[in-house]
Amino acid sequence: MTADETLFSTPEMANAFSADAHVSAILEFEAALARAEAAAGVIPLEAATAVSAACRVELYDVPALTRAIPAAGAITIPLVKALTAQVAPEGRGYVHWGATSQDAIDTALMLQARSGLALLIDRLLAVADACATLSERHRHTSMPGRTLLQQALPITFGLKAARWLALVTRQVWELRRLQRNGLALQFGGAVGTLASLGDAGIRVTELLADELELSVPELPWHTERDRLSAIAAGVGIVAASMAKIASDVALLTQTEIGEVSEAVEEGKGGSSTLPHKRNPVDVTFARASAQLALGSVSLLLTGMAHEHERAAGAWQAEWTALPQLFRTTDFAVERVRSAVVGLNVYSERMHANLELTDGLLMAESLSMALAARIGRQDAYRIVQLACERAREQQTSLLTTALAEEAITTRLTADEISGALDPASYLGSTDAFIDRALAGYRELRAPVEMAW
Amino acid sequence: MTADETLFSTPEMANAFSADAHVSAILEFEAALARAEAAAGVIPLEAATAVSAACRVELYDVPALTRAIPAAGAITIPLVKALTAQVAPEGRGYVHWGATSQDAIDTALMLQARSGLALLIDRLLAVADACATLSERHRHTSMPGRTLLQQALPITFGLKAARWLALVTRQVWELRRLQRNGLALQFGGAVGTLASLGDAGIRVTELLADELELSVPELPWHTERDRLSAIAAGVGIVAASMAKIASDVALLTQTEIGEVSEAVEEGKGGSSTLPHKRNPVDVTFARASAQLALGSVSLLLTGMAHEHERAAGAWQAEWTALPQLFRTTDFAVERVRSAVVGLNVYSERMHANLELTDGLLMAESLSMALAARIGRQDAYRIVQLACERAREQQTSLLTTALAEEAITTRLTADEISGALDPASYLGSTDAFIDRALAGYRELRAPVEMAW
Amino acid sequence: MTADETLFSTPEMANAFSADAHVSAILEFEAALARAEAAAGVIPLEAATAVSAACRVELYDVPALTRAIPAAGAITIPLVKALTAQVAPEGRGYVHWGATSQDAIDTALMLQARSGLALLIDRLLAVADACATLSERHRHTSMPGRTLLQQALPITFGLKAARWLALVTRQVWELRRLQRNGLALQFGGAVGTLASLGDAGIRVTELLADELELSVPELPWHTERDRLSAIAAGVGIVAASMAKIASDVALLTQTEIGEVSEAVEEGKGGSSTLPHKRNPVDVTFARASAQLALGSVSLLLTGMAHEHERAAGAWQAEWTALPQLFRTTDFAVERVRSAVVGLNVYSERMHANLELTDGLLMAESLSMALAARIGRQDAYRIVQLACERAREQQTSLLTTALAEEAITTRLTADEISGALDPASYLGSTDAFIDRALAGYRELRAPVEMAW
Amino acid sequence: MTADETLFSTPEMANAFSADAHVSAILEFEAALARAEAAAGVIPLEAATAVSAACRVELYDVPALTRAIPAAGAITIPLVKALTAQVAPEGRGYVHWGATSQDAIDTALMLQARSGLALLIDRLLAVADACATLSERHRHTSMPGRTLLQQALPITFGLKAARWLALVTRQVWELRRLQRNGLALQFGGAVGTLASLGDAGIRVTELLADELELSVPELPWHTERDRLSAIAAGVGIVAASMAKIASDVALLTQTEIGEVSEAVEEGKGGSSTLPHKRNPVDVTFARASAQLALGSVSLLLTGMAHEHERAAGAWQAEWTALPQLFRTTDFAVERVRSAVVGLNVYSERMHANLELTDGLLMAESLSMALAARIGRQDAYRIVQLACERAREQQTSLLTTALAEEAITTRLTADEISGALDPASYLGSTDAFIDRALAGYRELRAPVEMAW
Repeated sequence: MTADETLFSTPEMANAFSADAHVSAILEFEAALARAEAAAGVIPLEAATAVSAACRVELYDVPALTRAIPAAGAITIPLVKALTAQVAPEGRGYVHWGATSQDAIDTALMLQARSGLALLIDRLLAVADACATLSERHRHTSMPGRTLLQQALPITFGLKAARWLALVTRQVWELRRLQRNGLALQFGGAVGTLASLGDAGIRVTELLADELELSVPELPWHTERDRLSAIAAGVGIVAASMAKIASDVALLTQTEIGEVSEAVEEGKGGSSTLPHKRNPVDVTFARASAQLALGSVSLLLTGMAHEHERAAGAWQAEWTALPQLFRTTDFAVERVRSAVVGLNVYSERMHANLELTDGLLMAESLSMALAARIGRQDAYRIVQLACERAREQQTSLLTTALAEEAITTRLTADEISGALDPASYLGSTDAFIDRALAGYRELRAPVEMAW
Repeated sequence: MTADETLFSTPEMANAFSADAHVSAILEFEAALARAEAAAGVIPLEAATAVSAACRVELYDVPALTRAIPAAGAITIPLVKALTAQVAPEGRGYVHWGATSQDAIDTALMLQARSGLALLIDRLLAVADACATLSERHRHTSMPGRTLLQQALPITFGLKAARWLALVTRQVWELRRLQRNGLALQFGGAVGTLASLGDAGIRVTELLADELELSVPELPWHTERDRLSAIAAGVGIVAASMAKIASDVALLTQTEIGEVSEAVEEGKGGSSTLPHKRNPVDVTFARASAQLALGSVSLLLTGMAHEHERAAGAWQAEWTALPQLFRTTDFAVERVRSAVVGLNVYSERMHANLELTDGLLMAESLSMALAARIGRQDAYRIVQLACERAREQQTSLLTTALAEEAITTRLTADEISGALDPASYLGSTDAFIDRALAGYRELRAPVEMAW
Repeated sequence: MTADETLFSTPEMANAFSADAHVSAILEFEAALARAEAAAGVIPLEAATAVSAACRVELYDVPALTRAIPAAGAITIPLVKALTAQVAPEGRGYVHWGATSQDAIDTALMLQARSGLALLIDRLLAVADACATLSERHRHTSMPGRTLLQQALPITFGLKAARWLALVTRQVWELRRLQRNGLALQFGGAVGTLASLGDAGIRVTELLADELELSVPELPWHTERDRLSAIAAGVGIVAASMAKIASDVALLTQTEIGEVSEAVEEGKGGSSTLPHKRNPVDVTFARASAQLALGSVSLLLTGMAHEHERAAGAWQAEWTALPQLFRTTDFAVERVRSAVVGLNVYSERMHANLELTDGLLMAESLSMALAARIGRQDAYRIVQLACERAREQQTSLLTTALAEEAITTRLTADEISGALDPASYLGSTDAFIDRALAGYRELRAPVEMAW
Repeated sequence: MTADETLFSTPEMANAFSADAHVSAILEFEAALARAEAAAGVIPLEAATAVSAACRVELYDVPALTRAIPAAGAITIPLVKALTAQVAPEGRGYVHWGATSQDAIDTALMLQARSGLALLIDRLLAVADACATLSERHRHTSMPGRTLLQQALPITFGLKAARWLALVTRQVWELRRLQRNGLALQFGGAVGTLASLGDAGIRVTELLADELELSVPELPWHTERDRLSAIAAGVGIVAASMAKIASDVALLTQTEIGEVSEAVEEGKGGSSTLPHKRNPVDVTFARASAQLALGSVSLLLTGMAHEHERAAGAWQAEWTALPQLFRTTDFAVERVRSAVVGLNVYSERMHANLELTDGLLMAESLSMALAARIGRQDAYRIVQLACERAREQQTSLLTTALAEEAITTRLTADEISGALDPASYLGSTDAFIDRALAGYRELRAPVEMAW
């Protein structure tokens, strides 16, 4: 065992992409193939039954099969041999009939990807639930919005959570789309002609896809990897979305900002030497894991130029890049889930941070109030000068504005102080939160309606 | 000018992502914004008219605006200033009303992406046309299928072209999907609340999206970049698809294989020192350009964690990564188009290559014929031995097979030689080609039907 | 012109990697080649003189040459033709004698890389100067050290600057090493045998390398790109180092931290809508540009498997990836230089931030004082509990500690308050700053001594 | 266990980067730290002895420690706790004294990197041995040199192997340089000040580095990751070098080229369905593994911007990226070693391929012979026309040349046929091979001489 591999995965995704799961998925392909060929009259029914009966992963020495890969070239070489030995005599001659290694391995990866997508969707829905709750609960919790890391204008924490929610909602829909359209059978025989099936190729293909509940591709896609890349990109964008949420949380937990913190648990987020430390470990690992996931996406996309009818290198690299992508992405989602579910939100600190600039944060609001009288550009310039002065004199923008003739001749003192009230300048915040929540409810509606 | 930038682009895509086009798209946003706000009653109609009138790129010194970016932070800072100066007095106070730099720049990139997608689709359709022609014409042109760069079994060149065709077909559908669903207005004001529009935010958003024919997002997406990443991934997979086709062509042009060559043109593909050289320059540049494109995809996906309400770095990197992605991808598509449109196909050489192994290539066919009598595994072993012997004795597999009792006791000489005839062992090749062509026809059908 | 290309470069590096500079460097190769061959007696001296005379970039239509690349395959094809036409009759027959396109282009890139390294070193030295100044000046300016974005223990700003300084110092040494060892002539003729030079190949190689002041490789390296990759990696690590410094600065400029700010200049770092905004634009662009640079490094390293004796794709991609790497890295260095040269440092704000946790920041110090009496682990646990209590009761750690028997029985009140004084707990900070400054002085010493 | 992880590694490198090895290296750090601190008088000698005694990996439940990472934040948190429990009372209070998690983990990774570099060097030397043998043995074995995948001019297989040899030689020197200069102790305490060691920090640092045989950095480098990136780049370039050699071999094994093949072994490189298949599995896996390695390099370099005094994400990602890099690179080297050690070289096939173009391959030779009389450009044009004619008439270049007055008036028939003899046109091939072998002998000389 190596420390690093088991680290960046959930147990569930580690299972879905374990060596056992891979062999199991290959065996599922072999069994389904035999049944499909029997149904198509290509092989005898009792042969199919015999093959199916031997397609149980517990009959095989998976570590030994794995170790044999480098010499054999593919796990199917020793596996088909071992499988054949397990099959009763009446089926032994019909194992792997008409198929090639890539058919079995690619289809197995598609079956594993199906499990992987389902796991990711479930976990993303849990993230969405938490974001929806935060969004509702903090709909009116004002805090500074920040651009280029500087306080810019007020938002509410509910709006920030609503943006996370909408992001996650879109990802679930995208993964559902991939579940529905992106998972296809690979079946072509040695070079994609299904030569050994004579004219039964298309028929067996359809029956086999049906058995495995995968879609029938228009052609075998052994060296056209766009389907796999689309899955990789979709999953990778999930990982990158987690990095966005995790980064926001990490930045908000900074000692000097202190607007949120991860839930405190015994033994969580301590330091080996600093007794006071509470590290945001969930989002830290989410960011790390997302970074790893995106590395796998790059690998998969840059490796798409598979040679001729089977690649010498690019295909084999996928065997590890795809599992790593699913594992690291799921871990990122899980860490974000853990962070947002238990998130402590400090509204009084948010409020205090809003006060930090003594009103500078509200400069646009004042500028727009003024702009209604004298136009946007002049207003901008006048308020900009007032901001300079407030900075120099270390007074509030309110004080400076009330002392500035160019402003007081156009706005009353009430208008000025009204314009500098954060709560008054939130625009469509509420409406945006409603829209995100509406999207979430649609996401959570029974799936048959949603499609 | 730098040599490398103009190199890996088509002129059309260079135009679509020129500095002029970018400023023009920003101005399109500003004009549409003014009109939408007038329609919503936020600003006077004559102000909108005045703003619109000044939104013509030829009025601005684009190189100067571009040079101002590093200090200003964004091109919109000097541009909004310059625009304001151009606007007639009645509109001057209403320029960029309620918007922020990111609204203008992100929406401009979406408008440019729309142009970019349209250009890519057109060019991909031309690639599809050429592949469809090759597929039909060479439906029965036998050639070796190759796995791990070794001859494996016969295919036809029509089938290879059909796989390219299906790959390109899928990419066009994917880009059409992105055209339809992937292009959204960005409009949120400084921090995504549309604060300065009071309660008119949603209304202006809808009118503005309508003006620009972009979809209305559920929320501003300034720091949720999944939409942009999905476009990047879609375009990148197009580039990678071109790399696949180009690599196949490059490998087939090898002197020792010689099954295809790029069209000869005066001055094309020569060497500075080798008088006889005809280099496959189209596919060479296609591969180079696709590699560059995929680098941009990685950049965009790994940069998705934009901080808070506006990123300090990741956003700005997109300004060059996205244009480069479109430019290099379009160049890759154009080079593949040029290669496949003029491709010389040498069917006699393909035939000769099929003979190269003296029948070894047909081993599976013989093995399957035998398998029908004695099962797959025994047949495999017997034929494998026959292959070894043929290699050692440097005879043909036919000769060896006819001398091998384990075979001749099960198959007649006619059956054996029949099994070793490449033309007899093409399985579903024809049906697969038909399916690819059917998909192509659907792609080429009037678009309103296809959607 | 495209907006994005000129953006992420300094003018100097844009010049060093302009199309003109590239053609100029190729011509430098061609002239030196002729002279070397004349010196070796391979071609007549007057031929060499005639060739040299025509090797001036202003004689050529560089944009036309650049446009010809996709069809020709390499810029040398039209350039050698144009050059030959310019050469006086006595030299015309000896142009490009014995060389191939890749010799000229690879060597030109090496010459351009030499210019590029020199530019980078100069600019890095300016960054080092500024960091050294900051390091000296703020040697005793206490501020919070932060781990996982949480306040951890005090450091001084001088120490932070010293770490930047040491980082930059190491990069200059590394680039100097590459200048000295990493730049090699490429000269091998069509396939790396120098066949057309008979037995004069090695002699001409040595003379040519001498002319160009490049090192003589043991063999031509046309498809062994490790030298280029080492340069790419070295430059890329410079870019990544800039990202580190820029990220630190960006984080320190946050409104809530406010410990540093970029120098204010007219028109720098404003917002299109927020009058009060001062954005950290230098470090923002530094981060963006570094991200782009690292994309180019990945491209160059993943493209190293050049086929046989000349690559069909991977080589051509380098023509743009290498220039982009130099341009974007230099821009990142320049932006960091601009940021650190003018950096405003707010020591009072640093001091205030140190107070923010009411002593929690000093927990380790108290824990170590206690550990001297009762061991590390028990001390850690006691202080951890005190921290919890301070948090719950919202009092200072000092108050809590003084009320905690487990502490007061081991430490006097003076010892406790002494342990909680940030200035007393800086360990080797001073010595580390001295070491960084000593390294800097060595770097700045006359170069002949340093090597 | 997951299938993909154990696949792309050698057993030796899997051991060097196993969880056990990692914990073991951390314990080595902790033991050395205690000894160094005792030597510096910071802790009692008997405490150091007690700590050292407990620093044996077999005392700890490594899988449990690994599982604890996500919650704890780092393996050192539970490990220091477990270690403290194992230490005899007199040392218990001094475990991990003055250090922080990052000190232990970074230093452990450096120790593991040292093992990793040593393994890589050994394996690369074995590759070099094989390449040297091939280079000597096939010094005169002519074969076609190929550019852009087209036959260009003759080389010898010895020269190709010599280029591989020189490439590998340079990599060994580079890894040796990293061994010598690139491995540094990380030791800074919580924020890099060594605060808890008072003024003993530098002294302990030196003693600790001495204990561990690592170099003393000028400053702690917790968030300046250039050293790690330099190691990553160096190792990555090794992987990419393997991809180059593997790709050459893969291309040469193509059925139609057939100039080399991997050694045949029972059960190696077969197909699940094609009885005749002998796949080049070693180089296939070498290419796949190198691709994975380069993904890890990108991860490490793009993640260099660690925040402040400890990163929240980028650091944690290194824990898996660095081990993966070493594992996948070593596997790539091992697969290349296996391929080149047993490589079958078919010189008669090389010879036959040289004949394939009926002399076109020798066009430059004829052109240069002619150039000596009439200049390079005219000669080029005349021979180019002769090549066209030979192609059209499907005759040899010799026949065409002998029929071409523009040639025959300048060259005798003997000169023409001499110019068309591949063996006569190898230029500096022999000298280049000698230079590569000389470099190899220097590499293999006793190491103290070599440095």
